[in-house]
Amino acid sequence: MSFHAYAAHAKKGALAPFVYDPSPLGPHDVEIRISHCGICHSDVHLVDGDWGFGTYPMVPGHEIVGTVAALGPEVGHLQVGQRVGVGWQRGACLGCDLCGAGDENLCSQNEGTCVNHYGGFADRVRLDGRFAFPVPEALASENAAPLLCGGVTVYSPLRRWVRPSMRVGVVGIGGLGHMGLQFARAMGCEVTAISSSPDKEPEARSFGAHRFLAVREPKALASAAGTLDFILSTVFVAQDWMGFVAALRPNGVLCLVGAPAEPLSLPVFALLGGQKTVTTSVIGGRPAIREMLEFAARHGVAAKTQLRPLAEADAALDETRRGRARYRIVLAA
Amino acid sequence: MSFHAYAAHAKKGALAPFVYDPSPLGPHDVEIRISHCGICHSDVHLVDGDWGFGTYPMVPGHEIVGTVAALGPEVGHLQVGQRVGVGWQRGACLGCDLCGAGDENLCSQNEGTCVNHYGGFADRVRLDGRFAFPVPEALASENAAPLLCGGVTVYSPLRRWVRPSMRVGVVGIGGLGHMGLQFARAMGCEVTAISSSPDKEPEARSFGAHRFLAVREPKALASAAGTLDFILSTVFVAQDWMGFVAALRPNGVLCLVGAPAEPLSLPVFALLGGQKTVTTSVIGGRPAIREMLEFAARHGVAAKTQLRPLAEADAALDETRRGRARYRIVLAA
Repeated sequence: MSFHAYAAHAKKGALAPFVYDPSPLGPHDVEIRISHCGICHSDVHLVDGDWGFGTYPMVPGHEIVGTVAALGPEVGHLQVGQRVGVGWQRGACLGCDLCGAGDENLCSQNEGTCVNHYGGFADRVRLDGRFAFPVPEALASENAAPLLCGGVTVYSPLRRWVRPSMRVGVVGIGGLGHMGLQFARAMGCEVTAISSSPDKEPEARSFGAHRFLAVREPKALASAAGTLDFILSTVFVAQDWMGFVAALRPNGVLCLVGAPAEPLSLPVFALLGGQKTVTTSVIGGRPAIREMLEFAARHGVAAKTQLRPLAEADAALDETRRGRARYRIVLAA
Repeated sequence: MSFHAYAAHAKKGALAPFVYDPSPLGPHDVEIRISHCGICHSDVHLVDGDWGFGTYPMVPGHEIVGTVAALGPEVGHLQVGQRVGVGWQRGACLGCDLCGAGDENLCSQNEGTCVNHYGGFADRVRLDGRFAFPVPEALASENAAPLLCGGVTVYSPLRRWVRPSMRVGVVGIGGLGHMGLQFARAMGCEVTAISSSPDKEPEARSFGAHRFLAVREPKALASAAGTLDFILSTVFVAQDWMGFVAALRPNGVLCLVGAPAEPLSLPVFALLGGQKTVTTSVIGGRPAIREMLEFAARHGVAAKTQLRPLAEADAALDETRRGRARYRIVLAA
């Protein structure tokens, strides 16, 4: 049996049809017939070689939803025909202290779904069933796919740092940020959308923002000084970090889930003044993913998506590369 | 009645005898007959005008232990003759949410004991009795005085971030660090002293360090990569921050209680790799101070001190300025 995928054959290369024979189904493996796969900005970085890792031919795609087509003999928690999702991670040692604590995302042996493996821009995929998660009934596949990576990327730090009473800012109203607004609102927080695009205000409010800060307007950020308990930055370019730190209340936390190329440079006095914290977060462990899916189902959190056929994977990836997705492009079988 | 103090009359000026008439005793005030006052590096910064605030004549001193000599009519929790301690802070609004949460140190109306007030290098002081703390019997006054500022400065972040199972590094084995080692050890942690002075190893071990890293030796820090859950940096000069971040385990926290003049500059990828955090901490609120004093009494945590008569305040301050205190100079009446 052959799997039909779309692959880049070189750095920054176009995605073209690619057929491969999968590895044999291992005892813990699951084969998924893919119905939907979201396009994350990480797919662009991988194809473009921005991070210096990954091998070609490269099949991107790590926001997968589909149905179980086959199971290895040791898989006890899934059934053929069941709808499941897979995110950035497809493996970990499952034996170390971090895995034991549900921090599989931090395991030194973590494996990426489309890093040195063929990912989800395909009709099928085989991977460790322990990283395939049942998708709750209430979630539509198209809207659930982006939750698997983008969703947990914003949910996990909110889950760790935020209480419902808090005032939360979300920087960047894009693929990640528009889910961050929804999760923070559903957690009970007072939510401020922070964006360089004033035209995003109406949609930001529809995603749950109580307030909107257009940060390119002079003094907009200064007007928010000392008002936020937690700022989630989802952007990949350098920002007015000092302005964000100043926007935090005492004991406030600035959390980065996107990595700008430039180093973060902050005067220590600015942090010490209100005992402030800068932290980071990367995707989430298996408990966070399961919990996030249930939470999203309970609260109607859903990615706002644009469907494209898998055959248009190359053009769709380029739309994401150019920042034109509103807010997440999802490839459909 | 006049109080007899030692004051600097200009920026970087020598400390000379200074007599002043105190303000009338307010309803919540306490008058303390000072027996001991520790010298903190902040006193040097204040006298030298490094922080751009403070007024002259300036009476430094904010690690005060003494006995209650007089009480305002509203003070119900102290008695004349009782031994009390006062730290960096002498006032706050006591009405805001931060004060209500025991974070008086972050109150926007916080007042410093020797900032625009005459401090503890004196025979007596008058201040808000709500910032005077009973000193447990088990603590000698000489060793307790430095706990009031330096002690809580290191205790408060350990209390907030550390569990007994953790591996804790303390950077800088000086006035703050030597208390940090003791507190972390008493909390049950595995403790690593991190110092640029290899000759401090025996004493660092006597303060509770299980391990010693001489960071000026090549590869010393690299040998500790990925081994520490929490690093408390007590130093005031720029460090190999990237090396410290690399020494953290996944989810690890680097906490700065000293403020180097240079901005902290860190590649975001280095933090994201293990979901790491950089935080800060400034002294501690009233609950932290009370708890710290009880904890120190229970575990025998004590500053290692060198006694000097109050009349030698100027020479003693200069010893601290030159980094020669081992580990805290305390002025005695």
